[in-house]
Amino acid sequence: MVNETQHTCSASSSSKSDGGSSSGSESSKDSSRCSTPVLDAERHERLREKMRRRQDSGDRWFSLEFFPPRTANAAVNLISRFDRMGAGGPLFIDVTWHPAGDPGSDKETSSMIIANTAVNYCGLETILHMTCCNQTKDDITGHLQKAKRLGLKNIMALRGDPAGEEWEEEVDGFNYAVDLVKHIRNEFDDYFDICVAGYPKGHPEAESYEADLKHLKEKVLAGADFIITQLFFRSETFIKFMKDCQAIGITCPIIPGIFPIQGYHSLRQLVKLSKLEVPQEIKDVIEPIKDNDAAIRNYGVELAVSMCRELLDSGMVHGLHFYTLNREVATTEVLKRLGLWKEDPRRPLPWAVSAHPKRRVEDVRPIFWASRPKSYIYRTQEWDDFPNGRWGNSSSPAFGELKDYYLFYLKSKSPREELLKMWGEELTCEESVFEVFTCYISGEPNKNGHKVTCMPWNDDPLATETNLLKEQLEKVNRRGILTINSQPNINGKPSTDPIVGWGPSGGYVFQKAYLEFFTSNEIVTALLKVLKKYESRVNYHIVNVKGQNITNAPDLQPNAVTWGIFPGREIIQPTVVDPVSFLSWKDEAFALWIEQWAKLYEEESPSRMIIQYIHDNYYLVNLVDNDFPLENCLWQVVDDTFELLN
Amino acid sequence: MVNETQHTCSASSSSKSDGGSSSGSESSKDSSRCSTPVLDAERHERLREKMRRRQDSGDRWFSLEFFPPRTANAAVNLISRFDRMGAGGPLFIDVTWHPAGDPGSDKETSSMIIANTAVNYCGLETILHMTCCNQTKDDITGHLQKAKRLGLKNIMALRGDPAGEEWEEEVDGFNYAVDLVKHIRNEFDDYFDICVAGYPKGHPEAESYEADLKHLKEKVLAGADFIITQLFFRSETFIKFMKDCQAIGITCPIIPGIFPIQGYHSLRQLVKLSKLEVPQEIKDVIEPIKDNDAAIRNYGVELAVSMCRELLDSGMVHGLHFYTLNREVATTEVLKRLGLWKEDPRRPLPWAVSAHPKRRVEDVRPIFWASRPKSYIYRTQEWDDFPNGRWGNSSSPAFGELKDYYLFYLKSKSPREELLKMWGEELTCEESVFEVFTCYISGEPNKNGHKVTCMPWNDDPLATETNLLKEQLEKVNRRGILTINSQPNINGKPSTDPIVGWGPSGGYVFQKAYLEFFTSNEIVTALLKVLKKYESRVNYHIVNVKGQNITNAPDLQPNAVTWGIFPGREIIQPTVVDPVSFLSWKDEAFALWIEQWAKLYEEESPSRMIIQYIHDNYYLVNLVDNDFPLENCLWQVVDDTFELLN
Repeated sequence: MVNETQHTCSASSSSKSDGGSSSGSESSKDSSRCSTPVLDAERHERLREKMRRRQDSGDRWFSLEFFPPRTANAAVNLISRFDRMGAGGPLFIDVTWHPAGDPGSDKETSSMIIANTAVNYCGLETILHMTCCNQTKDDITGHLQKAKRLGLKNIMALRGDPAGEEWEEEVDGFNYAVDLVKHIRNEFDDYFDICVAGYPKGHPEAESYEADLKHLKEKVLAGADFIITQLFFRSETFIKFMKDCQAIGITCPIIPGIFPIQGYHSLRQLVKLSKLEVPQEIKDVIEPIKDNDAAIRNYGVELAVSMCRELLDSGMVHGLHFYTLNREVATTEVLKRLGLWKEDPRRPLPWAVSAHPKRRVEDVRPIFWASRPKSYIYRTQEWDDFPNGRWGNSSSPAFGELKDYYLFYLKSKSPREELLKMWGEELTCEESVFEVFTCYISGEPNKNGHKVTCMPWNDDPLATETNLLKEQLEKVNRRGILTINSQPNINGKPSTDPIVGWGPSGGYVFQKAYLEFFTSNEIVTALLKVLKKYESRVNYHIVNVKGQNITNAPDLQPNAVTWGIFPGREIIQPTVVDPVSFLSWKDEAFALWIEQWAKLYEEESPSRMIIQYIHDNYYLVNLVDNDFPLENCLWQVVDDTFELLN
Repeated sequence: MVNETQHTCSASSSSKSDGGSSSGSESSKDSSRCSTPVLDAERHERLREKMRRRQDSGDRWFSLEFFPPRTANAAVNLISRFDRMGAGGPLFIDVTWHPAGDPGSDKETSSMIIANTAVNYCGLETILHMTCCNQTKDDITGHLQKAKRLGLKNIMALRGDPAGEEWEEEVDGFNYAVDLVKHIRNEFDDYFDICVAGYPKGHPEAESYEADLKHLKEKVLAGADFIITQLFFRSETFIKFMKDCQAIGITCPIIPGIFPIQGYHSLRQLVKLSKLEVPQEIKDVIEPIKDNDAAIRNYGVELAVSMCRELLDSGMVHGLHFYTLNREVATTEVLKRLGLWKEDPRRPLPWAVSAHPKRRVEDVRPIFWASRPKSYIYRTQEWDDFPNGRWGNSSSPAFGELKDYYLFYLKSKSPREELLKMWGEELTCEESVFEVFTCYISGEPNKNGHKVTCMPWNDDPLATETNLLKEQLEKVNRRGILTINSQPNINGKPSTDPIVGWGPSGGYVFQKAYLEFFTSNEIVTALLKVLKKYESRVNYHIVNVKGQNITNAPDLQPNAVTWGIFPGREIIQPTVVDPVSFLSWKDEAFALWIEQWAKLYEEESPSRMIIQYIHDNYYLVNLVDNDFPLENCLWQVVDDTFELLN
């Protein structure tokens, strides 16, 4: 670990090496220093700076284009895809603008809201497309203001397709993308990074290839920061285009748009829309296999990989932009073969960071929402200040109310029928609930043969880290300690540890053991007696749905349960058990019993009444073992409790 | 450690146990929570609350009275005495008001400035006496405003001795202490805690004992918070007085004033001033031994111990107030025999906390001033915000300028002749300077047979913690690595560790190894080559007097080098290596060569020129080994450097 390269900087700091003046008081006034620990420099950069940094360091990168879905269910799926493909490490994604789909509205399928979700809930750097023709200045300004309000920082400025054949230029209207670029710079100064489209074969409607290059230069001069190209089929096409751009003085980054052929029909449709011609050698291969989807896709992947290699080898290309058509397989395959897919990149913090610019200082959160980060982001979206370093300072803002259980990004990915199969078509007693929890932990099928792959509190399978505790968790769930969150204690593992590591390399990460569960009044009574023995070692919070609250936390102080020590940094403590926000989480945790589980069943049905009984009578408990260097004592606490009960 | 009692609180938190409402958003608005980690509850309490807490918990306590010194040298000594006697854990000290000594002035010997020093620089809870007769309302208000501005929070309100025989009551003037109490409450509301004097035998000028009790009650009704009594010679005197007070409805704390007899003459003088009568049985003992100081003091200690025991055993007394006459031995002896002297009480933080109310959130400081905490407090006294949790946020305020080398509390306790004996009457070469450093570390006498017990950067002998590194330090100083600050790496020792522990029990403390030294250009050149090998492990800052600054610290970020993990708390990181404030420290560290050392010698003398040469040409270096769980590599770095040089 000692020998790992550290991404710090004799380089960047040597630029400061003459900055020390002989007067200390002058130097200490230096306000260029950021007050946050900057674990991840990119988090504080705008997209064009990230691009430049990658280019300077020779790191190659990719980006992904998606279009907004048609239905709310498709939106839920697309967002899961963002999470999965986000894991590969794209520099950004972009979301196209569908004029027909009310793109600036609050609908869960609108371009605006999909881009908002990608930025805020998936933590992805995102470009929102925007077209300008057939729209009023006020409409456009309104869209841009809304985008800014939502935390979007990048716009792809496009003309869009004129509606109907009879389109004519409007005087003072938005006739071309360049008008939109100018408008954005006029109205929003340098707030947005602006991307524009380039056409390696020239825009189909342009008078000539040369005229189109001139239009492109106008867009750059008007304030565009970089260019993404239309798709093309031969690397020479792009390289020629790039050289031609450079020849007329276009110096900003130009990113080739890559379209891996994924099927015969999608290719035909795209070619028709973009008015491109498919080279004969490609047609020759595809036509004979046009009914064999797999064969075409394999060919498309081959073709894309070899074209991308040529582009990268040319030395002119640092990043590749993929037209995914909202599909995963082909693009992921191409990226993996190119070595650009960085599976499980290092986590800057143990939780998923939001990309909203307001949240860039955020570096501590309560542990409770660990499996529901999108809910946490949603419930804190109105906060003006996010905690930086210390939780206490920023926990005063109220949590948003719990009224939007059905917000699409909080919905389960699984349909009702599937949930019923997992959680029981019919519950007969509390123990049948225990079994569901146990199966979720163990990964074994339930008695009807269905695997339990999600729970109301966690829409994903068990985290790798939780697997470390699997055996004990299974044992306690079987006995009615219904766990919904936990972490093992960690006493100084390298920050590069594949399971529990986070932050820059060369550091050490620590955790206090944590266990959170629902359990019955009877067990809580015994537990409280046992906890007396552990008074100085274990902190606990025990609360029921009515808000009765038993705790030994001193003075409502938060307890840091995850922290990291890094070279040349202040301490980072990204996760706390916070007595105050636990009461906000409690509302959500209890509500999920009803909203996600009980409501699967008919009113008055025995199954529903069992869940309702648990909701009304169980307690939500959290335990922290403060002695992180010793063996986790929480299992002993639970064992002692059951021993007392017997 | 696990079984140690923790000063946390099912008790205090159970009072909150019904506080949880069913609406989380309501609870999260709860602003009763303090945003600081409250390692030490007393730090946030006012004196009367501390008294009440001690009384409720049955903890007995003591306090110490001092008078202001006559000369600046005596002031330096008195402040050292504050530090030494402060180590025994007094609940407060008080400083008497000497009308003849310009008590409210800025003179280093004034009552005001001595009390200011006790609070701000020695971190002692302090009561400033104030008398009111023969003073105008404006004078008094001015003194009180100044006291408040300096961070003083407690006033002992006294009448004082009328000047001359012809004194008469002034209409609307301050004739009695009660007038001063009323004035403080009128003008300063509840800001000050107010103490008044009680006379167990009645004030000598009162019409009667009963009339005097009535006056005392008036003072309490006017707003006094507690009473300290005049000295007395028999415990019965106090107990009767206490009962009489209670009988007329005085319910505030009454603290007996204890006067350990320390000599024949001081007793006679005091008795004359206070118009008290010494009981015959005491006279009978003292008269025969009046010329034997030691015998009288031993008797005085015996007498005080047995009287204090009687007072404490009565159950009516929780705290004892000592008239020290600015002497240490007798009072310390009495306190030790009573078991009230708590040698080396637990440190709430690894550095000496200031008692100024503005600084109560302060919980992180740069390591550089570790041996000069008074200088740090002085140079940051104008800061409005002190860092809480994160250093970066509060480091923008400028450090105060370095103009007051001669501020009396920054002066060496040792006179010039002694310093010359320690640091050399005559220096012949740089190596003779190396020897001084080496002797300071080793504790061995220098070649003239004098021990080196202080250095310009550290007026005290080596810290216990530094002793852990003694052998290596000695070795490197001998070779010209002139160390002025260091700490070993610590990987999770109990917070109760007698050497490196701090903070509440049940926690774990950590440190990164730190080394700070002056060294020559030649050594720095080799060192920089060696440091390349340790690039990812060791952070360094290297600066010369002109401010040339070489560092590998990322983005001017501070590096946490001392931190602690405690039950139910956020992480505390009290010490950082901060690149920005290092440049302020650099000015001070280099200036000390000249101000404290070079100036001991004649101008143009060889000795002075050697120190001047070092000042002009050496570098100040600090090194942090980030890999705190591994063996400290800094010694290896130094060894490698010398190997490269050879």
